[in-house]
Amino acid sequence: MTDILGFAAQGRKQPLGPWRFARRALRADDVQIDIKYCGVCHSDLHQIDDDWGIAFYPLVPGHEIIGIVSAVGPKAVRFKVGDRVGVGCMVDSCQACDPCAKGLEQYCESLPVYTYAARDRHDGSPTYGGYSEKIVVTEKFVVRVPETLDLAGAAPLLCAGVTTWSPLRHWKVGPGSRVGVIGLGGLGHMALKLAKALGAEATLFTRSPGKEADARRLGAEQVVLSTDPAQMKAVANRFDLIIDTVPNDHDVNPYLPTLALDGTLVLVGFVGQGKDALSTVPLVFGRRSVAGSIIGGIRETQEMLDFCGKHGIHADIETIRMQDINDAYQRMTKSDVKYRFVIDMASLAA
Amino acid sequence: MTDILGFAAQGRKQPLGPWRFARRALRADDVQIDIKYCGVCHSDLHQIDDDWGIAFYPLVPGHEIIGIVSAVGPKAVRFKVGDRVGVGCMVDSCQACDPCAKGLEQYCESLPVYTYAARDRHDGSPTYGGYSEKIVVTEKFVVRVPETLDLAGAAPLLCAGVTTWSPLRHWKVGPGSRVGVIGLGGLGHMALKLAKALGAEATLFTRSPGKEADARRLGAEQVVLSTDPAQMKAVANRFDLIIDTVPNDHDVNPYLPTLALDGTLVLVGFVGQGKDALSTVPLVFGRRSVAGSIIGGIRETQEMLDFCGKHGIHADIETIRMQDINDAYQRMTKSDVKYRFVIDMASLAA
Ligand SMILES: [Zn+2]
Ligand SMILES: [Zn+2]
Ligand SMILES: [Zn+2]
Ligand SMILES: [Zn+2]
Repeated sequence: MTDILGFAAQGRKQPLGPWRFARRALRADDVQIDIKYCGVCHSDLHQIDDDWGIAFYPLVPGHEIIGIVSAVGPKAVRFKVGDRVGVGCMVDSCQACDPCAKGLEQYCESLPVYTYAARDRHDGSPTYGGYSEKIVVTEKFVVRVPETLDLAGAAPLLCAGVTTWSPLRHWKVGPGSRVGVIGLGGLGHMALKLAKALGAEATLFTRSPGKEADARRLGAEQVVLSTDPAQMKAVANRFDLIIDTVPNDHDVNPYLPTLALDGTLVLVGFVGQGKDALSTVPLVFGRRSVAGSIIGGIRETQEMLDFCGKHGIHADIETIRMQDINDAYQRMTKSDVKYRFVIDMASLAA
Repeated sequence: MTDILGFAAQGRKQPLGPWRFARRALRADDVQIDIKYCGVCHSDLHQIDDDWGIAFYPLVPGHEIIGIVSAVGPKAVRFKVGDRVGVGCMVDSCQACDPCAKGLEQYCESLPVYTYAARDRHDGSPTYGGYSEKIVVTEKFVVRVPETLDLAGAAPLLCAGVTTWSPLRHWKVGPGSRVGVIGLGGLGHMALKLAKALGAEATLFTRSPGKEADARRLGAEQVVLSTDPAQMKAVANRFDLIIDTVPNDHDVNPYLPTLALDGTLVLVGFVGQGKDALSTVPLVFGRRSVAGSIIGGIRETQEMLDFCGKHGIHADIETIRMQDINDAYQRMTKSDVKYRFVIDMASLAA
């Protein structure tokens, strides 16, 4: 393939700029996708800044990828040219371990191959993400986008959507369930929409009184100001599942008494060493759990997209040009986005 | 009823000594039990010392009670005089809340009425425990002791047994499960026996190399020295459930990577504010959980006793006289018991 255009960071904490690079020639089971839209995830900026110590450069971010199939390898059978497809946070995995066998590639014991800043399993070449014209991916890690979905609004489903969908399904949320959501950003707004569509009663925990109207519009039946002890006490023993989307370290102890018997608080935002120790009292006296969860498997990503197609669920997005990505990062850092930036890749050609 | 003899602490941190007190007259659904044996639990000493700030005096400890029914109220239908019965950590609960409706009285939203240092729901009178000649309890909170069980060896099943049984069952341990047990005391030795009898592969985590032979005798297929990073690493991603029986604060972070995908570490020993904050990394990257659990419900206590009756499972005990209880506490504090003291109540008459 001739070189394609993308946007890359050439080093740690560098602003993104245009960069030409090659995608691999199609392998037998590969699909080539012309990228139409790519969502902007907090992880993109974490990786540019090498916050997790695993980045390398040039780094082309982007793992909320929506596009149209433009070529297929000779043994790729699941897609044909013209299909509307998506690629999320992973482009491969070992396919041999227990988690992979269960369709939980995100927990692959060899680690999945992430969509960017990782190494291909076969030739060790770097993976480059969706801030680019095209991508080449084994069909196993490509999902189908229902015709009823808007392509731009579907992009964030590939990370923010499935990251909240996976725990909702794993902990069996459905009609009658009471779900709490901590934080109203890209993940939180999807958690509210999905929980409501699954038939659950959704409640937003927030520190900002100003978010109430928006939370209700997104599906929350109730908004609890987490800084108000009286409001917190009023929801004691209430939630079957709390999805904690806060991306940085914070004390979860105040939320634990709001879990019902056998309730779970699942962390999907913050990955790292906390500084607040748990009290075991609410855990022991209510058989409550604190858990973690990361993105979702390929099978459940497809399931989530099909569900969103059926229920008309998209992310709330603000579309930007590729050239405006550095400004978008600045705004994202200040939570100045409702609720996800999505890059229109047509802008790359402009 | 005329006064009966028991052993009580007359104030905080006071040694136990003989004390005469009255049990209530039988209510319609009450059962009167002549106590034959009572196990000695760490909680007994915690309450004497008022470590949890809820004790009051005189305090008669004891919630691993085994005896023979000696009278029944006019509407008590489940037991008759002469029956071999047990009473554990609870003697009543609201019977109206969701947990009670589910047979999980230990999580009663109004708190269950504990066997001692609590207040009767009907007349507010203090509850007094099993370090005494007799006890009067509503038949709902009395369990049947299978004929195949030795009365003394069965006593610790009422607390140490069900406290480990309940999480084993709740987290569905059975053939093929891998169970880790942290700590080899009264709870830990029961966890090993019960996990093995349920068909699981049991592993003891310990800081004492000297415990290996005993652990294997009790059912452990493997012993991991938790102070040895190489041994800990060798069991990474291994356990479906870890039962953490350590009674005081300790760092659980080193154990989390030894949980398999979707594995749970359940705290059953330490109740209080920890000082070591969790890293969310092993939680997020393996959908692992940290949970708590307390004793067990009445239905599962009976289930556990029946299971022990069928499999010939008793606690490993050292029988003592009531008069030697203060010395026994000293030895228990030094973990100088294999693995539970049980008071022979015949000694009270001596
Ligand atoms: Zn993401
Ligand atoms: Zn794998
Ligand atoms: Zn106990
Ligand atoms: Zn209750």
